[in-house]
Amino acid sequence: MAGKLHTGRSRNDQVTTDLRLYLSEEIALLHQALIALQEAIVEKSEGHLEIIMPGYTHLQPAQPLLFSHWLMAFFWKFERDRERLDEVTQRMGICPLGAGALAGNPFNIDRQALAFDLGFDAISQNSLDAVEDRDYVVEFLSWAALVQIHLSSLAETLIIWASHEFGFVELAETYCTGSSLMPQKRNPDSLELIRAKSGRVLGHLVGLLCTLKGLPSGYNKDLQEDKEALFDVIDTLKLELPIAAGVIRTLKVNAARMATARDDMLLATDLADYLVTRGVPFRESHQLVGRLVQRAEKLGVPLRDLRLPDYQSIHPAFAEDVYAVFDFQRSVQARNTVGGTAPDAVCVQVEYAKAILAKNESL
Amino acid sequence: MAGKLHTGRSRNDQVTTDLRLYLSEEIALLHQALIALQEAIVEKSEGHLEIIMPGYTHLQPAQPLLFSHWLMAFFWKFERDRERLDEVTQRMGICPLGAGALAGNPFNIDRQALAFDLGFDAISQNSLDAVEDRDYVVEFLSWAALVQIHLSSLAETLIIWASHEFGFVELAETYCTGSSLMPQKRNPDSLELIRAKSGRVLGHLVGLLCTLKGLPSGYNKDLQEDKEALFDVIDTLKLELPIAAGVIRTLKVNAARMATARDDMLLATDLADYLVTRGVPFRESHQLVGRLVQRAEKLGVPLRDLRLPDYQSIHPAFAEDVYAVFDFQRSVQARNTVGGTAPDAVCVQVEYAKAILAKNESL
Amino acid sequence: MAGKLHTGRSRNDQVTTDLRLYLSEEIALLHQALIALQEAIVEKSEGHLEIIMPGYTHLQPAQPLLFSHWLMAFFWKFERDRERLDEVTQRMGICPLGAGALAGNPFNIDRQALAFDLGFDAISQNSLDAVEDRDYVVEFLSWAALVQIHLSSLAETLIIWASHEFGFVELAETYCTGSSLMPQKRNPDSLELIRAKSGRVLGHLVGLLCTLKGLPSGYNKDLQEDKEALFDVIDTLKLELPIAAGVIRTLKVNAARMATARDDMLLATDLADYLVTRGVPFRESHQLVGRLVQRAEKLGVPLRDLRLPDYQSIHPAFAEDVYAVFDFQRSVQARNTVGGTAPDAVCVQVEYAKAILAKNESL
Amino acid sequence: MAGKLHTGRSRNDQVTTDLRLYLSEEIALLHQALIALQEAIVEKSEGHLEIIMPGYTHLQPAQPLLFSHWLMAFFWKFERDRERLDEVTQRMGICPLGAGALAGNPFNIDRQALAFDLGFDAISQNSLDAVEDRDYVVEFLSWAALVQIHLSSLAETLIIWASHEFGFVELAETYCTGSSLMPQKRNPDSLELIRAKSGRVLGHLVGLLCTLKGLPSGYNKDLQEDKEALFDVIDTLKLELPIAAGVIRTLKVNAARMATARDDMLLATDLADYLVTRGVPFRESHQLVGRLVQRAEKLGVPLRDLRLPDYQSIHPAFAEDVYAVFDFQRSVQARNTVGGTAPDAVCVQVEYAKAILAKNESL
Repeated sequence: MAGKLHTGRSRNDQVTTDLRLYLSEEIALLHQALIALQEAIVEKSEGHLEIIMPGYTHLQPAQPLLFSHWLMAFFWKFERDRERLDEVTQRMGICPLGAGALAGNPFNIDRQALAFDLGFDAISQNSLDAVEDRDYVVEFLSWAALVQIHLSSLAETLIIWASHEFGFVELAETYCTGSSLMPQKRNPDSLELIRAKSGRVLGHLVGLLCTLKGLPSGYNKDLQEDKEALFDVIDTLKLELPIAAGVIRTLKVNAARMATARDDMLLATDLADYLVTRGVPFRESHQLVGRLVQRAEKLGVPLRDLRLPDYQSIHPAFAEDVYAVFDFQRSVQARNTVGGTAPDAVCVQVEYAKAILAKNESL
Repeated sequence: MAGKLHTGRSRNDQVTTDLRLYLSEEIALLHQALIALQEAIVEKSEGHLEIIMPGYTHLQPAQPLLFSHWLMAFFWKFERDRERLDEVTQRMGICPLGAGALAGNPFNIDRQALAFDLGFDAISQNSLDAVEDRDYVVEFLSWAALVQIHLSSLAETLIIWASHEFGFVELAETYCTGSSLMPQKRNPDSLELIRAKSGRVLGHLVGLLCTLKGLPSGYNKDLQEDKEALFDVIDTLKLELPIAAGVIRTLKVNAARMATARDDMLLATDLADYLVTRGVPFRESHQLVGRLVQRAEKLGVPLRDLRLPDYQSIHPAFAEDVYAVFDFQRSVQARNTVGGTAPDAVCVQVEYAKAILAKNESL
Repeated sequence: MAGKLHTGRSRNDQVTTDLRLYLSEEIALLHQALIALQEAIVEKSEGHLEIIMPGYTHLQPAQPLLFSHWLMAFFWKFERDRERLDEVTQRMGICPLGAGALAGNPFNIDRQALAFDLGFDAISQNSLDAVEDRDYVVEFLSWAALVQIHLSSLAETLIIWASHEFGFVELAETYCTGSSLMPQKRNPDSLELIRAKSGRVLGHLVGLLCTLKGLPSGYNKDLQEDKEALFDVIDTLKLELPIAAGVIRTLKVNAARMATARDDMLLATDLADYLVTRGVPFRESHQLVGRLVQRAEKLGVPLRDLRLPDYQSIHPAFAEDVYAVFDFQRSVQARNTVGGTAPDAVCVQVEYAKAILAKNESL
Repeated sequence: MAGKLHTGRSRNDQVTTDLRLYLSEEIALLHQALIALQEAIVEKSEGHLEIIMPGYTHLQPAQPLLFSHWLMAFFWKFERDRERLDEVTQRMGICPLGAGALAGNPFNIDRQALAFDLGFDAISQNSLDAVEDRDYVVEFLSWAALVQIHLSSLAETLIIWASHEFGFVELAETYCTGSSLMPQKRNPDSLELIRAKSGRVLGHLVGLLCTLKGLPSGYNKDLQEDKEALFDVIDTLKLELPIAAGVIRTLKVNAARMATARDDMLLATDLADYLVTRGVPFRESHQLVGRLVQRAEKLGVPLRDLRLPDYQSIHPAFAEDVYAVFDFQRSVQARNTVGGTAPDAVCVQVEYAKAILAKNESL
């Protein structure tokens, strides 16, 4: 068989066959690492369903949010990453062997059988394309660059939340470094490096695309540059994904600080919703609440300390029950449609996520 | 309905819903443009099945190749591009509407019904992720960057082949520019611009990835930068793909120049194969032919002009029938396994391609 | 003259001559915009010399720092940017006119005189290089990408400091957006866009470099892609630099919140320095203070509340005067070498900066 | 001294001090490697002053060009690279030592003296900027990316010229690879790798810029990612520059093939110039020659084979001496202004280049 294998083969078709096999194996490991990260997210979310924190837009407090809801947002990003990885894997399952140097094999070999023996799903249909095609490497690097965007966003958010001033979370010691001088200092080095590696991975993607740009048809030596980038990206992700999972798993969530950070302004939307349910048009309700907010700011009091006449001077639809709005629990519970931050909706979300992971495990 | 639609909506979920709808429509057009390009490739290939040209590696002549085989290599690149575009489209079919600003919708709307009405396939599962997710834009730009690699390789190859010195192809006047001074000059501007646009598209991809890198969770104004890049890439591809198709469709193939460019050195592999079929081990056969080639070079004659004793002094397996090797037609015919350059194999390839396109049309 | 000018000219040398002239004018405007930004920094720094805030590394409090010192750090970044811009400008002052299409001018024109008339400093030495050289565009885009790094760091820091939880600064209303619903919300849109544009500018740089990569010698149509990128980067910077200057000029610095955020841990380095001045080796002093910090943490008290015996149990060099260390004013004053955060040093720094700007103005 | 050096130092100022010192040394080596490449270019140019080849735009023949003129174009590109490298070096000569972790040094050290001892030219003016500044790394990588553009253009041109169909140059065996089978094949691997490395270097630049983007003020662990990119770029250039110099030095120039490739169409510009010197306006002359060219094409004869009445039917200014135009030697000689392709002008150019290199050596 080995003899047969050699007949009519060229370095050109061999090299890309080997690379596909190697990458397929590594992808399986990355797939597992992604699942482990998703599991850490799900477990953490499930264990902290009661914590309500400020939700941010523009890094400014916007609306109350379940901490678990925030964390689960990342589950779906990584779920899309897994989905995309599956697609990359499929195209990697095409066997180029038998393409020779460029023109094909003259010895009547059974390429299909050869491909199946090696674990491929299908064979390439054009020998020239087969030897010069590096789409699968580009696809993988593009995939990795997007994973890094997700990782960097997770890292950035936690770095800010771990600051002294936010104090929302505390990283386990394993994932921080201090110094002999400042042993209390918890520099989130692990997260900073995860954030930083985004540049590295993007750099490799850009590098390969630039190398491939404008190459004339047929195998060119330039293609040799694909390997180092690929190996480095795989190593990088194999290092980072378990760290990210570990950071999540061991993260100390400071519910008290999160509670302190909540203020009535987070409930402005709920006040507007209150008016809407009492018949005030959506857009008008926003402007009315805007005026209430300004009044409260002017008086220097929280919204809940405005008196009922104040409310009613803005709009007669306000009644005594408006004060029930000032309940963060109530606010999150109200957002109970699919994908909302209501505890029930988040529970459904977590269960769905668990089902997805379970299904994957059973494969 | 419109009233209901407005209730609880935010610019954050609206903007990304609109962008998904817009992009889906544009993708359908790009899909058609890709098909038109593939059709041009298939037609041209089918119409030029008899032309044998030198196949290149490292821009050096390597083995005889059917011109059609060369061209069909691009069919498969663009076929992979179409496959990938379908995958991008699927993920674009997730509706974020109902996510509000970040926390979800409190008015008990039926997100599923809303999504179906708008033509989406499914709904997002986490409101925070829904408003900040721009994966689909990144995916699209990554896709476009890889399409550009294929286009730039096609363009580069044709630019070189259209040079005075190669003279393998001639571009139709519509796709060239001369000058008042040199009306005979056929500057392949269309292809140069296609090649150049690779930078532009890659730039947009890098730009967005860099913009997204390290953003904290929640909607940030930075996300607004996604649109211009996206629009420009769509415009660029909508311009280029029909040009590429037009260039192919109107390309004049200069079979005579291609024939002139073929020399016996292209058949070195066939000589080695000759030995292999006569029992000489693969690796040894290569070295033996290498010595023949050197002898021919030294004598300054083509391989076919070496006398039989010359051949036999290298290896006794050479017999009178070795001269039958010096037939370019025979060389390509020998590579008759799937994906090989044999006319029969290329016919099968073309038929397969036509079936793929037909199937797509019937959808 | 105009007639003479036309003689022997080609679009190739004209286009790049025009682009150089255009870019030189725009650069002068950007230079002014940079100076205006530096002036805003200097003024703001000079007006806030008394404010001591926590200085950060890894976004964790590290040592006391003058707010003005923090801000002045950006003066020097932009000063380097100006220096680099001057260098780019110099190379832009080389006139390619007279290079013709590629081979030079046959009409014995005085290229030197022509160049001086147009305001150039010198002439190119090789006609082929002259028409294909786009180094100056690449240089300019590289320059802009680095300016953006500085701007994005400024923006990011202020976005975090403007958060509810830090509360160190407040942006003027002109540079924020709220909504009808949440008029109190101060989304730092201006800074988010500045941060985001880094991607855009980097994208243009990458785009051009990728376009230029691997072009064969001689004018190629690909070069036409340089212009849009260039124009967009110029527009972007002309928009951003005044905004950045405006943000700085109108920034409300919240000294009270900065004071609240300071805690004794910021003085750990000063404690170690105390030991060093009393003869304890540098490295040892760090470890000793580390132990003190841990003790304070364990007891849940600030460092200044540890009793003298506690200090002395760690090292006998500690005396009653150790408590004088717990003075943020004293800490900053101690760092009085060139470039240090001592108020006197910062004053010198500000004066130096003013002298630099004054010298520039007088040019 | 060493003891003093340790006092008040931090890893933050040390790391960047070391990196500056290291990079300065490496830059000196790269500077030498650039000079060696320039020397190879000058020598080769000087030794081949008599060869006239077709000059190309759009890879189409345009005008006659001295081979030496083509090659010297690269001298000036690398000369600009050297100039830029000097500028980068200057900014690298700023010593950050004494900045401590971020706030400066409290021990009254003489930073100036320390800097001079280490070989620096000046000291940084702001301790915070000093520890976080990586501009010099970005500058170096930007510089390297532009060098690569020049190298890739040189490589691409030679790869095309070394093709069987052009045959203008032949690479020395050391810089090619064949195979056991095709020992005659001269794959220009060295040039392909030089071209390919452009992607790699650009990737590192993008990587670092993306890593730096949006970092908050103060030392962040992310900065650690600067080193690997830097080392790899240095290694890459130290490998490539001597190879490029070697390729040039050993390049076999095939004057005969270049002569064969010249045809009368290259002289269309000279024909127009002929008319201009006889009083026909520039623009008109171009259109007239255009018509001549079309006539020649139609008749299938070279321009010089058109009869005088043909010429005169286009414009009466044509006289018997028009046939003197059909002399490639005369064409290049005409372009005798500074930077033109006339042998005399190229000699001046070469002498100027030698003077520049000599001046550099004497430093």
